[in-house]
Amino acid sequence: MSQPNVVALSGGVGGAKLALGLSHCLPDDALTVVANTADDFEHLGLYIAPDLDTVMYTLAGLNNTAQGWGLADESWQCMAMLKRYQAEDWFQLGDRDIATHLVRSRWRAEGMTLTAITDTLRQRLAIKHPILPMCDEKVSTVVQSDQGDLAFQHYFVREQCRPAVSGFRFAGIENSRVTASVQKAVAGMDLLLVCPSNPFVSVAPILAVNGMREALLARNTPRVVVSPIVGGMAIKGPAAKMMQELDMPVTPVAVASHYRDFATHFVLDSCDAEYSDAIAAMGMEVIVCPTVMRSLADRKQLARTLIDRF
Amino acid sequence: MSQPNVVALSGGVGGAKLALGLSHCLPDDALTVVANTADDFEHLGLYIAPDLDTVMYTLAGLNNTAQGWGLADESWQCMAMLKRYQAEDWFQLGDRDIATHLVRSRWRAEGMTLTAITDTLRQRLAIKHPILPMCDEKVSTVVQSDQGDLAFQHYFVREQCRPAVSGFRFAGIENSRVTASVQKAVAGMDLLLVCPSNPFVSVAPILAVNGMREALLARNTPRVVVSPIVGGMAIKGPAAKMMQELDMPVTPVAVASHYRDFATHFVLDSCDAEYSDAIAAMGMEVIVCPTVMRSLADRKQLARTLIDRF
Repeated sequence: MSQPNVVALSGGVGGAKLALGLSHCLPDDALTVVANTADDFEHLGLYIAPDLDTVMYTLAGLNNTAQGWGLADESWQCMAMLKRYQAEDWFQLGDRDIATHLVRSRWRAEGMTLTAITDTLRQRLAIKHPILPMCDEKVSTVVQSDQGDLAFQHYFVREQCRPAVSGFRFAGIENSRVTASVQKAVAGMDLLLVCPSNPFVSVAPILAVNGMREALLARNTPRVVVSPIVGGMAIKGPAAKMMQELDMPVTPVAVASHYRDFATHFVLDSCDAEYSDAIAAMGMEVIVCPTVMRSLADRKQLARTLIDRF
Repeated sequence: MSQPNVVALSGGVGGAKLALGLSHCLPDDALTVVANTADDFEHLGLYIAPDLDTVMYTLAGLNNTAQGWGLADESWQCMAMLKRYQAEDWFQLGDRDIATHLVRSRWRAEGMTLTAITDTLRQRLAIKHPILPMCDEKVSTVVQSDQGDLAFQHYFVREQCRPAVSGFRFAGIENSRVTASVQKAVAGMDLLLVCPSNPFVSVAPILAVNGMREALLARNTPRVVVSPIVGGMAIKGPAAKMMQELDMPVTPVAVASHYRDFATHFVLDSCDAEYSDAIAAMGMEVIVCPTVMRSLADRKQLARTLIDRF
């Protein structure tokens, strides 16, 4: 079976799990991960890119699997001093993690693009597959909620997703454009995978980058969405809560409907096989398989299943 | 005996030792430490003020006495990651220390003066005595050397004081001025102490601030210099090496001569009593006492000796 060239769209933790599985199954030049950057923000003068970092740390094998986010062997000495100074302390900055933010912020100030910075960082962490930010321009997810408009990290971390959401917008998206690196990856792509990431705040910003959707559609490859909703719940993060607040049923059918103008294939967890017909009726091919990735073996197995299918 | 109001001029480690001794002997409103900021620099986007930090950490009881610089219980996780990223790693950034730099850099970006920032930081570390930067303007010591002009930290840390010095200049000093906080401290001062700090790169910049020397002289109080050269050596740092390279004898007499237009009193270590007459001949009163501060008791003892003398 020939090896497809895969482009994977990813948010943070959930998406990075599948990206890791893919990285174990595909040669260096056959996988490019394009990550959401609309939850990037500046904090204490540091430019922080949570989804890029999660993907990067995960592919480098440096992620903290016990904690579910951040770096392994992390320490919190800087945070303890920040608290002592009564500085803003709602965002957890690990001592090791800070190095990433310092270097990235420094290189940004020197005029490097986020694409170039990310590529340098991932090489220095000995990651073999390219990781690309969705764009080089600054795009910021704004969560429209019953507490007004909130910057994404304020909603997600500071307010711990408590506000009820009514919608989202991506400030600055009008200035974004598909980078040359993303264009090149898409030009060679045989298969597009949308990792099991939040449809509204992880994948939607990527697809909203000027020219992204058109570029992805133009290749006319399979476009395969892995459902982030399994058994009526989100595996990770606020996707299910958001769907309730947006008056959507918390089902893979609602997710599939969200992607109906984009996806050619929809991946359902075996426990949700009952929804196959409803999704097929939207004109997508349905793939039913185990999608919950608890172990590295699970990650590799899902990646292998999807690759072998095409 | 009445308690004098003391203003102490200090560089880093050596000066901070006496400042700590003074802080144990004087009530909150009777001691102000004015610290050199001409070795401040920006590194990886962080504004770092080594002498202010050393004074602050020392008065807070947080300094690393074993290492002789930096914070106690420090860790180096961020540095390890910086090395992994092949970022500049010649300046040691401890995890706890980084919090100070982050907060200070952030507040500077928000428009706070270095005076206001330092005052807030020291209060949050529960330091009772004011610590003032010598000025709020950016002044940068340039070391003129056989390797050309070097930024101070490049000379001091990166090159480990190896280049032979031929002189110093303080870039930006022409824009500096005495702050309102320094003016106020000087207006109430009964005694000026120059801590045993490097005459050329720690004390000289302070005295070079526009209006500083005149303000200190105008009060007409005793101006007491504690020799940083004891037994032909500098207790700490490159002062002795600099004196050799500047063709000065490495003796307290040469230091006293350096301060001859400024100091009224000169403090000699007991081991250097032989130089008393030569220094007295310059018109200074000489105080001979133990000045080497190995223990906290030594620091308090020297402070007490000097306070009780006036």
